[in-house]
Amino acid sequence: MIGRLNHVAIAVPDLEKATARYHVTLGAEVSEPQPLPDHGVTVVFVQLDNTKIELLHPLGENSPIAAFLARHPDGGIHHLCFEVSDLADAAAKLVATGARVLGDGKPRIGAHGLPVLFLHPKDFDGTLIELEEVKPEMQPA
Amino acid sequence: MIGRLNHVAIAVPDLEKATARYHVTLGAEVSEPQPLPDHGVTVVFVQLDNTKIELLHPLGENSPIAAFLARHPDGGIHHLCFEVSDLADAAAKLVATGARVLGDGKPRIGAHGLPVLFLHPKDFDGTLIELEEVKPEMQPA
Repeated sequence: MIGRLNHVAIAVPDLEKATARYHVTLGAEVSEPQPLPDHGVTVVFVQLDNTKIELLHPLGENSPIAAFLARHPDGGIHHLCFEVSDLADAAAKLVATGARVLGDGKPRIGAHGLPVLFLHPKDFDGTLIELEEVKPEMQPA
Repeated sequence: MIGRLNHVAIAVPDLEKATARYHVTLGAEVSEPQPLPDHGVTVVFVQLDNTKIELLHPLGENSPIAAFLARHPDGGIHHLCFEVSDLADAAAKLVATGARVLGDGKPRIGAHGLPVLFLHPKDFDGTLIELEEVKPEMQPA
């Protein structure tokens, strides 16, 4: 069911410093900061040869990562995002096995403009998992 | 400097259950459990289309992940491993920028039989980073 690891999301307390760590210290290609007010985060994309790191910093009130950073002031890995080709089918299979889909259980539009849902970390070894619907024709060669 | 994300390592309290979550619930290809007594872990490799998840469970006394699981009884993401083509060069550049290499600062042979070193999570937004030397000719096409 799951295909590519789309990204690893890391919540960071200082976006400028975190970007410099990946760009200057580790020598990776990084994007400009991209504010996503609808999602309550500013994101910097770190492009690796086979996947991406997304550095997330809270934006505005009620940011979904503010509580996480309050618990982890140094920052930390927030979630893993796996690609699936059919999110409704994936959700139905997951619910049938007892896995809990967060929120109302319905896909919503994620930060990349594609349907996503999140699975409860208690059901996956303390790991918050995002599933993103990426059609095969959208995948990199 | 960093190239591919080689793997995401997740420490898990129950290897059989964790393997079933990735194989049955998420439909990914998984390996048989591989005991690595020299590294104090049993590993299951979860093969994704572009990278791997490594499910780590403590093996023997003094397992390097036992203390992590004591702090995170549900499990959790333990580290990210990035590939570099020249680990000695990478280590020298990192030390020059003030990043702390764990242990005695010298590469050792990691679980894949290749030279590795670990960087202090306090220097990378609460994320433990492993660097593994993978020569270009060893990389997948």
